[in-house]
Amino acid sequence: MSKPKVFEKPTGVKDYLPDTVARLRRIETDVLECMRKWGYRQIITPTLEYYDTVGVASSTLDRKLFKLLDKKGTTVVLRSDMTAPIARVVASLLKDCEFPLRLSYHSNVFRAFEDEAGREAEFFQTGVELVGDDSPDADAEVVALAIASLKAAGIRRFKIALGHVGFLNGLFREALPGRTEDQSALKERLLQRDHVGYRELLRRFGLDEHVREELESILRLRGGQDICEQARALSSDRMAQEAIRHLCEVWNVLGAYGVSEHVLIDLTMIGDFTYYTGMTFEGYAADLGFPVCSGGRYDNLLQQFDRPAAATGFALKTNRILELAARDSDGEKQPRKVLIAYVPGKVKEALARAAELRAEDDVAVETMRVAPPHGVENEPAGKEPLSAGGGYRLISASRGAQYDEVIEYV
Amino acid sequence: MSKPKVFEKPTGVKDYLPDTVARLRRIETDVLECMRKWGYRQIITPTLEYYDTVGVASSTLDRKLFKLLDKKGTTVVLRSDMTAPIARVVASLLKDCEFPLRLSYHSNVFRAFEDEAGREAEFFQTGVELVGDDSPDADAEVVALAIASLKAAGIRRFKIALGHVGFLNGLFREALPGRTEDQSALKERLLQRDHVGYRELLRRFGLDEHVREELESILRLRGGQDICEQARALSSDRMAQEAIRHLCEVWNVLGAYGVSEHVLIDLTMIGDFTYYTGMTFEGYAADLGFPVCSGGRYDNLLQQFDRPAAATGFALKTNRILELAARDSDGEKQPRKVLIAYVPGKVKEALARAAELRAEDDVAVETMRVAPPHGVENEPAGKEPLSAGGGYRLISASRGAQYDEVIEYV
Repeated sequence: MSKPKVFEKPTGVKDYLPDTVARLRRIETDVLECMRKWGYRQIITPTLEYYDTVGVASSTLDRKLFKLLDKKGTTVVLRSDMTAPIARVVASLLKDCEFPLRLSYHSNVFRAFEDEAGREAEFFQTGVELVGDDSPDADAEVVALAIASLKAAGIRRFKIALGHVGFLNGLFREALPGRTEDQSALKERLLQRDHVGYRELLRRFGLDEHVREELESILRLRGGQDICEQARALSSDRMAQEAIRHLCEVWNVLGAYGVSEHVLIDLTMIGDFTYYTGMTFEGYAADLGFPVCSGGRYDNLLQQFDRPAAATGFALKTNRILELAARDSDGEKQPRKVLIAYVPGKVKEALARAAELRAEDDVAVETMRVAPPHGVENEPAGKEPLSAGGGYRLISASRGAQYDEVIEYV
Repeated sequence: MSKPKVFEKPTGVKDYLPDTVARLRRIETDVLECMRKWGYRQIITPTLEYYDTVGVASSTLDRKLFKLLDKKGTTVVLRSDMTAPIARVVASLLKDCEFPLRLSYHSNVFRAFEDEAGREAEFFQTGVELVGDDSPDADAEVVALAIASLKAAGIRRFKIALGHVGFLNGLFREALPGRTEDQSALKERLLQRDHVGYRELLRRFGLDEHVREELESILRLRGGQDICEQARALSSDRMAQEAIRHLCEVWNVLGAYGVSEHVLIDLTMIGDFTYYTGMTFEGYAADLGFPVCSGGRYDNLLQQFDRPAAATGFALKTNRILELAARDSDGEKQPRKVLIAYVPGKVKEALARAAELRAEDDVAVETMRVAPPHGVENEPAGKEPLSAGGGYRLISASRGAQYDEVIEYV
């Protein structure tokens, strides 16, 4: 096997250059500040976790977990999300803290290298967890906060699709009693948003025509409050009914938040159904094929860490938002760039001026020693070409053009 | 081997709870803002790098590198510092950018688990690299910026010890010509700050008395400008002389920055002598046994990435600074905490009030649905005990005590 070349980095990871970092930091700061105002406080957990604790509890597929061995031979993982680590902390360091707990984070997370091109092995998520509150109001809070966070991140046009795992679970167990594999196959199709495949499966299952039509009709269950009414009529299953009742309550509270225009109910939205236990949602920005956030209720996770509790939350897909921000970054404000060039004899005045300017707000001041013009002082020649002319120009035009202002001390 | 318990995490890594994260974020923000004002722009590089590129180029001892295998069998490392990754980026993505380049970072870095108790496997560094400027002014700039950064981080009393690798290299090759192993042994003692061991070695080497005394005398070479004069007399070696001349120039520019009070020359300060090529420095806070920052000139690193260039920089040991900040955190300002409790029928007014308050600056507003007092509405009983009395108290006294203000909508 050949050695990697000096400039190479592993597959699926990337460098963020200053303009990009400035945008990423702006998103991070504004979103975390928004979350702070809603009472969420930041937490940082380690990059490495035990596979047997956080690894198996995470919602990430096992083959996508980035696994390695520590020196004692224990399997560790690079965290794949922040939800499972936070559950671990809630059940250990924070075990004496009263519920509800509101926690936020901005973090890099990892996936095992994929052979598929363009898949990222390391990327950022910014999110919250609201632990210990099973009310529809808690679900509505995280959806409303996701909306506020997307706005804080500068996303203007987006929609949140809101579903409920319980509705599909209830509907399918009523329509396909005992056929759990068939139920899973249908849910898998919906998770992949593969509506053609979903219809095909239904035809293959040899169902009564009215059952098939009913199950097909859910593909059209997208919209506002009225969708809840239609769904209620579709299934008499207790779990499905309860799900719809809960979702209607969430919808009503979202109305009280004044954010209904951003939300649509989509009962085919199932999220990761091995993980979520109730409401699930995804955010879509206009002009972007991928979701920019996802979240939902996961009431079964905390008990895996021996502190059973209801929980709901979401994560922004920060890298996707960064891509959007890069597209319309004309508005990004650049601080004023100043260069102070000085000959050795004027170093004190020059640096004093730099200190003075740096006390101002939106300014970046670089300093540079340059060789004095010929005859001024007996120093070796500098690296900067000196322009001819009456004055003492110490800085070349090409360098000078990089700054908003050049101040020369000669 | 027994499985880790659910609450356990790998050796040497830690969780940062909200109060600590708030302090860490304050340090990070203030230090990066200080660096930005000096013209340094942030960069982010991947957590994973190839061992054969960044791993071998890093200044971290091989056995302390956190190594693992990727799926193709290539050895990768969790980055051990940011200097080598930045060198890789400067030589690749930024290869067309004119020097000098000023880059800053705040990043977690990794060391292979140590068996010694209390050693951290993951911790934070906040630092800068100034690439493509070999002048004493560039060295002075990073020292002065280290001082400004420590101040921005809230460290009040500290000293920077300033040395030069070239002085010791020159002095030792003059005093112990050809005896490179003995030279390394002496440097190793100085690196460990083991002055007793250093003296012992000198006695064992069987040197002329005046050479031994001379080499011993450098242990007293700590102080201001006058140290430079004394050192100049100690060695006529060209490299040593050149080092002292350079250091005096750095000292003078630091005088022009007005920061001499924080700096002392310490010619026994050698830093990692396999890595640094010129000036080196370390910062010590009063009341803390460990350095809070370290840095220096490393003119040989960039050529390993095929873009030879002078470079100088430093990193703050952010976790040490965090420990200091925790000790005198009385001054940390906490935002006002408000709880808005509402019965279902008042959700709209309550959430409107929350939105209104969240538009203010230093406030965190939580909302909570509570059961209505008996007889007000026909809802199931809530989880909060209702206090008796004339009014409608929805919130228990113990919960209420966690907030600066509780607003109830009943």
